[in-house]
Amino acid sequence: MSEQVYGRVALIGLGLIASSMFWAMKRAGLAGEVTGYARSEETRRTARRIGLCDRVCDSAREAVQDADLVVLCVPVGAMGPVMEDIAALLKPGATVSDVGSVKRHVIDAVLPHIPEGVHFVPAHPLAGTEHSGPESGFAELFDNRWSLLVPVEGTDPEATARLRALWEGMGANVDEMDADHHDLVLAVTSHTPHLIAYTMVGVADDLRRVTDSEVIKYSAAGFRDFTRIAASDPTMWRDVFLTNKDATLEILGRFTEELFALQRAIRTGDGEHLHDYFTRTRAIRRGIIEAGQDTDAPDFGRGQKK
Amino acid sequence: MSEQVYGRVALIGLGLIASSMFWAMKRAGLAGEVTGYARSEETRRTARRIGLCDRVCDSAREAVQDADLVVLCVPVGAMGPVMEDIAALLKPGATVSDVGSVKRHVIDAVLPHIPEGVHFVPAHPLAGTEHSGPESGFAELFDNRWSLLVPVEGTDPEATARLRALWEGMGANVDEMDADHHDLVLAVTSHTPHLIAYTMVGVADDLRRVTDSEVIKYSAAGFRDFTRIAASDPTMWRDVFLTNKDATLEILGRFTEELFALQRAIRTGDGEHLHDYFTRTRAIRRGIIEAGQDTDAPDFGRGQKK
Repeated sequence: MSEQVYGRVALIGLGLIASSMFWAMKRAGLAGEVTGYARSEETRRTARRIGLCDRVCDSAREAVQDADLVVLCVPVGAMGPVMEDIAALLKPGATVSDVGSVKRHVIDAVLPHIPEGVHFVPAHPLAGTEHSGPESGFAELFDNRWSLLVPVEGTDPEATARLRALWEGMGANVDEMDADHHDLVLAVTSHTPHLIAYTMVGVADDLRRVTDSEVIKYSAAGFRDFTRIAASDPTMWRDVFLTNKDATLEILGRFTEELFALQRAIRTGDGEHLHDYFTRTRAIRRGIIEAGQDTDAPDFGRGQKK
Repeated sequence: MSEQVYGRVALIGLGLIASSMFWAMKRAGLAGEVTGYARSEETRRTARRIGLCDRVCDSAREAVQDADLVVLCVPVGAMGPVMEDIAALLKPGATVSDVGSVKRHVIDAVLPHIPEGVHFVPAHPLAGTEHSGPESGFAELFDNRWSLLVPVEGTDPEATARLRALWEGMGANVDEMDADHHDLVLAVTSHTPHLIAYTMVGVADDLRRVTDSEVIKYSAAGFRDFTRIAASDPTMWRDVFLTNKDATLEILGRFTEELFALQRAIRTGDGEHLHDYFTRTRAIRRGIIEAGQDTDAPDFGRGQKK
């Protein structure tokens, strides 16, 4: 059993990540009281109905009062304004963190508003599902997943260590990383793949000679996985692309360069090029399985997932 | 319990699909005797060791003797030569089918070698996993998945009905489709998505500023799904792209057109365009779940799959 890490935690924004954090903190007894706030009245009503948070507040300012930890769980584009709103209410010695998928932009937007005597330790849990909203969370979301801490220069090591203890208590593995490197790594492993999946699903939907019902009915493994990715929260992902612009555009450039080379191989009938490429990509899959980030069980679609 | 549909079935090629067909036919008692042949001696040895096929033969010609149904389960590029090899040995009244992912090319390559009095009913089961080889098959692979029959002009309706009964007995839903339309639909739902996944995984592997171990360790949902797709059999997929060239290149053209529009929206900071696009792609996911081709359970990675 874990011990309490913070007396009072405030969750600003009550979507998939915040609601999972609440259940994970409760599971392990990591926080004394957890307050919550969401901008939408409907979300606050739902949260109260399902018992999400010990106390749901009607303003962010109310929620953060006396909090030892404030976690910003809003879309990346909203972090700055929210921080500006709550800055004056923060308790001296409190820690502010966030769960945004982009770190440089969040630091630039939030750090200027952090008052003297308050710590700022940005974080990013690499976990999620295609569902969103206050009812989508569950205590196991972070189990055995990575949560990356991105401390800014001059951050109190004590504050970082305490946040690490919270994430480990919620089941996650924790690493520290520099903000710019984080944004590049995520552009490769998450942001660009999401954009590509969104694009492919959009193409299928546009194509008039193939009906939507055919696309849906005969959706094979490749495309089915894409649609799952492309069902993720539109606001969150809009903000990701707008705020991790440089890294995403760089990786997209590499992607189209490689895609054009494969396209040319198809057009010219260069089977050897294709076979070599497809053989090489097999190896990286093996590495992911060995790293414990997926299972080797065959994935053949519906019915095998809990 | 199903009844026997064919007295003797010959499987030419013993990979994922053929081995799954064997176990599915056995499960339901659909065939009297099933013979099998694979070009590689090692595959034949493995098949004999694990009891795959009632009789493993050392040549395709031996395997097809007296067969009521011959199923070509080799890569699309090998279908023509295999058919030429066995043509003279086929029993009058026998049916030849295949399981290739491309249909126009297979018909053009196989049909000229079909002897008078032998039926040809091309087929394509929309099922698979990222694993390959004789040990990767299992009886449940086709359960509730679609198998598309693509009868050629003049095919005996009786022969088509019998093959339909076999696929239904193996658990599949069966539809009939024209070859060219099949190739276009599959270019959208399977072939192009696979090429894109292969490309993205190759880009990640190439990027020297992000190490392979970081890509592997921090592989989030988007990329992890891509690596699963990109671990599929290289020979099979090389042949798919070389033989469904026109449809794949057409869909790739549409894809890059859309991708460039999204790329421009990112560069110019057009958040509304991105948000609208991502909202639209959510709907198609809903359709796939309603069509029963995937579950609504959140997919959050390793550990949730059997």
